[in-house]
Amino acid sequence: MQIFKVDSQGNFSGTYHTAVSSAQKPIEPCPLVGTQHLDEDGQCTFGFTVNWKKFSDSTAVFMGQCFAGKGGEDILHTSWLLREKVDSLPDDWKATRTGRNVFIRVGQMEERESS
Amino acid sequence: MQIFKVDSQGNFSGTYHTAVSSAQKPIEPCPLVGTQHLDEDGQCTFGFTVNWKKFSDSTAVFMGQCFAGKGGEDILHTSWLLREKVDSLPDDWKATRTGRNVFIRVGQMEERESS
Amino acid sequence: MQIFKVDSQGNFSGTYHTAVSSAQKPIEPCPLVGTQHLDEDGQCTFGFTVNWKKFSDSTAVFMGQCFAGKGGEDILHTSWLLREKVDSLPDDWKATRTGRNVFIRVGQMEERESS
Amino acid sequence: MQIFKVDSQGNFSGTYHTAVSSAQKPIEPCPLVGTQHLDEDGQCTFGFTVNWKKFSDSTAVFMGQCFAGKGGEDILHTSWLLREKVDSLPDDWKATRTGRNVFIRVGQMEERESS
Repeated sequence: MQIFKVDSQGNFSGTYHTAVSSAQKPIEPCPLVGTQHLDEDGQCTFGFTVNWKKFSDSTAVFMGQCFAGKGGEDILHTSWLLREKVDSLPDDWKATRTGRNVFIRVGQMEERESS
Repeated sequence: MQIFKVDSQGNFSGTYHTAVSSAQKPIEPCPLVGTQHLDEDGQCTFGFTVNWKKFSDSTAVFMGQCFAGKGGEDILHTSWLLREKVDSLPDDWKATRTGRNVFIRVGQMEERESS
Repeated sequence: MQIFKVDSQGNFSGTYHTAVSSAQKPIEPCPLVGTQHLDEDGQCTFGFTVNWKKFSDSTAVFMGQCFAGKGGEDILHTSWLLREKVDSLPDDWKATRTGRNVFIRVGQMEERESS
Repeated sequence: MQIFKVDSQGNFSGTYHTAVSSAQKPIEPCPLVGTQHLDEDGQCTFGFTVNWKKFSDSTAVFMGQCFAGKGGEDILHTSWLLREKVDSLPDDWKATRTGRNVFIRVGQMEERESS
């Protein structure tokens, strides 16, 4: 995941490189847009949406909070929802997956999923 | 909820007027940013983030899919995650609430929560 | 869904007749076990697990709270998680679906999903 | 968490010793009931309900799947929903928290939360 510059309102955009997919087509980096708080303690909550349009008709949202790791690095604890497109309302029940991810900031604007 | 113009990439911004809150301060409309697919059948999946900065340090993400109602109106079926800010990682377990909302489009750019 | 007698500890068992499935085999009623509080106001929280062993290797958990409807009938507002079996940990991310269901009590021990 | 004997149907009961709580009263071990599949590969899905009646009117459900760790030990990957009791339906939106837990089996019938 790469986050580009956060603006004065807390809005940001970036690119998400997923390692996993349940789609048929090959994985490609996809655009994301989001927003965060700008609290002085750095432990902001944030959220963003990933539009998987490069290889799927799904959408994912992530939200979480930033914490400081033992070495001072930023660690992002997130929960996510993944929405698959379904043909009609009777299939709506099965469209939503949920999970958790932890990301560690490895550069000024880049985060890596912790294994 | 008001969605302003969706751009050619599917990105949009808007304002969310919530009726409920667990924060201490009075509720105010808050900004949202998101992205949607642009499928021709109109049944796109989408997601957006609401930054509750006007009265809280929380963040919410919504994601879902658009369906056509009996009268042809757009109905948005969404799931959401709401993140409260916590002081430290040991409190992380209790920071995430989840739920569902259905919105009905009442104007070109406005959605109302269905009761 | 049929709930058999609730015991003095709040434990109960029953049968769940689902209308929807993503499994290959035909749907059959499946056993459930759960537990509820025994608050005097009747607005108890509860939870139960459905073992889909009759046609699938999945498991679902439901939890929620009982409310009184306008006609005095019991209405159960529930959230659920559905776990699919996956072959190995790298597939764990996609194993969990989530959703909501509302049930209305139609007899002393029977609930019907509200449409 | 302690799981007592699993019966021939896959049903079990046990005790959950939580380390965290948002309730006012002191934490006490609480009873749980659940059910699991009995697949021969040991990678069964399962679910259980914890009735927090000893110190709270909340209920939690956990569900997940068992995997083998590097040393052959059982590792339980779970997702959970926690339901708080609310006074009335308008407060229903905020009653559900969600999260993840990993447990490692430390004895024949005991699991310890992984840190």
